[in-house]
Amino acid sequence: MSKDRLYLYDTTLRDGQQTQGISFSTAEKLRIAEALDGLGIDYIEGGWPGANPTDSAFFEEVGATRATMTAFGMTKRAGRSAENDDVLAAVLNAGTPAVCLVGKTHDYHVTEALGITLEENLESIRASVAHCAGQGREALFDAEHFFDGWKANRDYALECLKVALDAGARWIVLCDTNGGTLPTEIGRIVGEVIAGGIPGDRLGIHTHNDTESAVAGTLAAVDAGARQIQGTLNGLGERCGNANLTSLIPSLLLKEPYASSYEIGVTREALEGLTRISRMLDEVLNRVPMRQAPYVGSSAFAHKAGLHASAILKDPSTYEHIEPEQVGNRRVIPMSNQAGQSNLRRRLAEAGIEVEKGDPALARILERIKARESEGYVYDTAQASFELLARDELGQMPEFFEVKRYRVTIERRKNKYNRMVSLSEAVVVVKVGGEKKLSVSESLDNAGSDRGPVNALSKALAKDLGPYQHAIDDMRLVDFKVRITQGGTEAVTRVIIDSQDGSGRRWQTVGVSANIVDASFEALLDAVRWKLIRDCGTAA
Amino acid sequence: MSKDRLYLYDTTLRDGQQTQGISFSTAEKLRIAEALDGLGIDYIEGGWPGANPTDSAFFEEVGATRATMTAFGMTKRAGRSAENDDVLAAVLNAGTPAVCLVGKTHDYHVTEALGITLEENLESIRASVAHCAGQGREALFDAEHFFDGWKANRDYALECLKVALDAGARWIVLCDTNGGTLPTEIGRIVGEVIAGGIPGDRLGIHTHNDTESAVAGTLAAVDAGARQIQGTLNGLGERCGNANLTSLIPSLLLKEPYASSYEIGVTREALEGLTRISRMLDEVLNRVPMRQAPYVGSSAFAHKAGLHASAILKDPSTYEHIEPEQVGNRRVIPMSNQAGQSNLRRRLAEAGIEVEKGDPALARILERIKARESEGYVYDTAQASFELLARDELGQMPEFFEVKRYRVTIERRKNKYNRMVSLSEAVVVVKVGGEKKLSVSESLDNAGSDRGPVNALSKALAKDLGPYQHAIDDMRLVDFKVRITQGGTEAVTRVIIDSQDGSGRRWQTVGVSANIVDASFEALLDAVRWKLIRDCGTAA
Repeated sequence: MSKDRLYLYDTTLRDGQQTQGISFSTAEKLRIAEALDGLGIDYIEGGWPGANPTDSAFFEEVGATRATMTAFGMTKRAGRSAENDDVLAAVLNAGTPAVCLVGKTHDYHVTEALGITLEENLESIRASVAHCAGQGREALFDAEHFFDGWKANRDYALECLKVALDAGARWIVLCDTNGGTLPTEIGRIVGEVIAGGIPGDRLGIHTHNDTESAVAGTLAAVDAGARQIQGTLNGLGERCGNANLTSLIPSLLLKEPYASSYEIGVTREALEGLTRISRMLDEVLNRVPMRQAPYVGSSAFAHKAGLHASAILKDPSTYEHIEPEQVGNRRVIPMSNQAGQSNLRRRLAEAGIEVEKGDPALARILERIKARESEGYVYDTAQASFELLARDELGQMPEFFEVKRYRVTIERRKNKYNRMVSLSEAVVVVKVGGEKKLSVSESLDNAGSDRGPVNALSKALAKDLGPYQHAIDDMRLVDFKVRITQGGTEAVTRVIIDSQDGSGRRWQTVGVSANIVDASFEALLDAVRWKLIRDCGTAA
Repeated sequence: MSKDRLYLYDTTLRDGQQTQGISFSTAEKLRIAEALDGLGIDYIEGGWPGANPTDSAFFEEVGATRATMTAFGMTKRAGRSAENDDVLAAVLNAGTPAVCLVGKTHDYHVTEALGITLEENLESIRASVAHCAGQGREALFDAEHFFDGWKANRDYALECLKVALDAGARWIVLCDTNGGTLPTEIGRIVGEVIAGGIPGDRLGIHTHNDTESAVAGTLAAVDAGARQIQGTLNGLGERCGNANLTSLIPSLLLKEPYASSYEIGVTREALEGLTRISRMLDEVLNRVPMRQAPYVGSSAFAHKAGLHASAILKDPSTYEHIEPEQVGNRRVIPMSNQAGQSNLRRRLAEAGIEVEKGDPALARILERIKARESEGYVYDTAQASFELLARDELGQMPEFFEVKRYRVTIERRKNKYNRMVSLSEAVVVVKVGGEKKLSVSESLDNAGSDRGPVNALSKALAKDLGPYQHAIDDMRLVDFKVRITQGGTEAVTRVIIDSQDGSGRRWQTVGVSANIVDASFEALLDAVRWKLIRDCGTAA
């Protein structure tokens, strides 16, 4: 059976840019376009040339792409010809092979928002599409508010589509602009539009996530016959976002009936790069990647429940709907107070610690983790602290050094220029190989700015560890998370520290105390000890 | 036409707790249960008594609820009677009116994961459900992996359901445990199950979001006849989360065909508290609320596109699928335009500050908020700090006192019993009414435990404020939140402090600095100043 071709149209660079708090630079747009092109997207909508200087610059700078580069704009305004509309001219001047023009199809919007007659709007659609097609461009018509328009006045809404099609549009894209239409209704209306004379292989679908159904609404449109899918990476977009291509692409490639019925431009091999592309986008945006994101999130294949974790060890398909590697992701079995011994053994093995099944140390380690969790510790992400705790219980934890005491002073006062300035100073006293060492550091960075008490402590601790100094010289603190939580009956502070070293290794440790500086110091100590085990071994 | 009743079953406290990185304390569980009960949820699944000490404590402490309190567990193990299964006994000992037991329905899981015969599994289901029902409990059977099981061996999967139903289960819940089944398939299979003899008004649906379709999958099951919906607040849950009740509830109440066809326990009035409940949960978890969350996210009604924003001013329905107030959310229009200023005037009025429309101070306040937000401040919750900033710009901010300097020392060392102990000490120097005052405090509470440097600072600051002392004597710090965020190009610490006074008034202030103690001090200062304005007036 020959497969129908589905076309993927990405609007991350246009509708995705409408996400609150996001604005791309031209360089960032170029980087994202390159990733989209490598993934196998069919159309890349780069922006609205003329409306936005960054978008205009993007179209000037972008090179040849496998994908069809597309400029976005709107149908000409009433009262002038398509040739004389400067907004439309700016869009065409970007010189892209395809042009997508948004226009009204909901009668209320025509008469109220635009304030023109229904006839004038039809003429704007006809003339604009014909003008683009006449220049040899592939023309797309984005039918704004289509589903609401269809419900209000289906004859007029359909007339708008027919006018665009007759004027030479390759694609008619049905947009659920306000995002309020549920999937079942989308499917039904797409079916009615096809029955009304617009062929399915000329129809696209553009949904928004305002009811958390954008992905399902898109699939409902495909089921009903639409053949172009519009969406964004990581579901960026106005308000609650657009249909998430990062979720749609794996479902289309891996799930039935889509895998057997349709062909898309993304290969199974390219799919393995999906998680990387999703994380790259978050990096560009400086956003923390959403852990729970379907397919690509770091929790998407995390098995916390004890029953799940033990079954996964026997056969991953018991609790996984696909193999994580298919989308370039990986399985995670976190520690938690619900995890069983098999889960524990597997996590120990990941840390290079082999413990026999049934070893009584396993129960002791679980007990200790439980007790610590009730004090406010969490070990599902702080794998390095988990490892140290287990090593300690197994008698595999060398005492590299002992902290005798520390003191931190934080001062804020006026300097000689009468400006308030702050400064922290830390003294740490450790005993290494029988020798007592005092180190002191202050919290100023190279620019002379105060970086706070934890910074001072971390520098003092790392200043002189005698024979171990070489191992920690390349360590640095890359992230620091704090939350107030419950430890027994009292509120305590939990600090999680991310450390990194010269080899790019990254590890997480945890500390808990009523005193935030003390909690941080505990996490710092664990970070240093973990690094020493990695680089100096456990025989020290 | 009489409406069918749909029942809402919340599993935030059980499946929601499977979210990576989350573990609730008993107090947090009680607070969430109270919110769920107030919302009008029909069933609250509180946890697995016996498997988890926090869950057991929750069931002991929770009081009477309007919702049916439900304990979760699993069907008895093979080879023993239901009466002699200690795991099942612990579940029943929680004494809840309803009990939900998960059991296998997928033949592969029975023989491979459990390692028992298909017959033995049927007997476990039958005996366990009968045992619960025999004790007068409402019994629910959670059919694990039902959809995969149905595809593998539909006769056996159906037989499992029938056995549970015949043994007295009120509800049979079809679980898409791995989250891989798409909505269309869920709808089709639910229809086939009903045709197979299980009445729709005995069927529940439990989906996961691994394909970003949990909400749509749930609605597909309802369309096919299922009448109980399981889900979690904010879509918490194992891996990618469960079906999000925070999205489902408004769709069921406000969207067709659901609004006209079904009755649920949540009223339109309670719906107006939905955004507040969603944010409360994030606050308990110390998570940043997801801006793009449907219905309740802070971006859900944010109109960034220029064309949208200007149409919204004419008629909000042009770009909004519902009114934000219906779910207790609000419209956001970029600060820069006219609507931004009227928003600001409304917030000022809430603080008792009247400013004339068009007053140039409004633009200056907006400018200053923008500048501070780029440094890492947030004012959407810290209303008290917002008020102080505005008063300062309006010349309505008295200088009650001036902080000349402070110093905090944090020490950790061995005490005379050779135990590591920590202690913080703070000195604060203020000038009040021309007089310089030095105050010192340490961080020990009544039990002699160290409560950390912020505690010491807060006590020293509040120790002697001369003529204002009476106004702050009844103030206390009730919550403290810390987040590492971006201030310009550097990572900074943002501290949000909740204060409360004897009258029960509660207010929030914010401080930002690279130094966590300094950020805390700034928020403390704002808290004290706000209280002085309330109690001593602005004429001081």
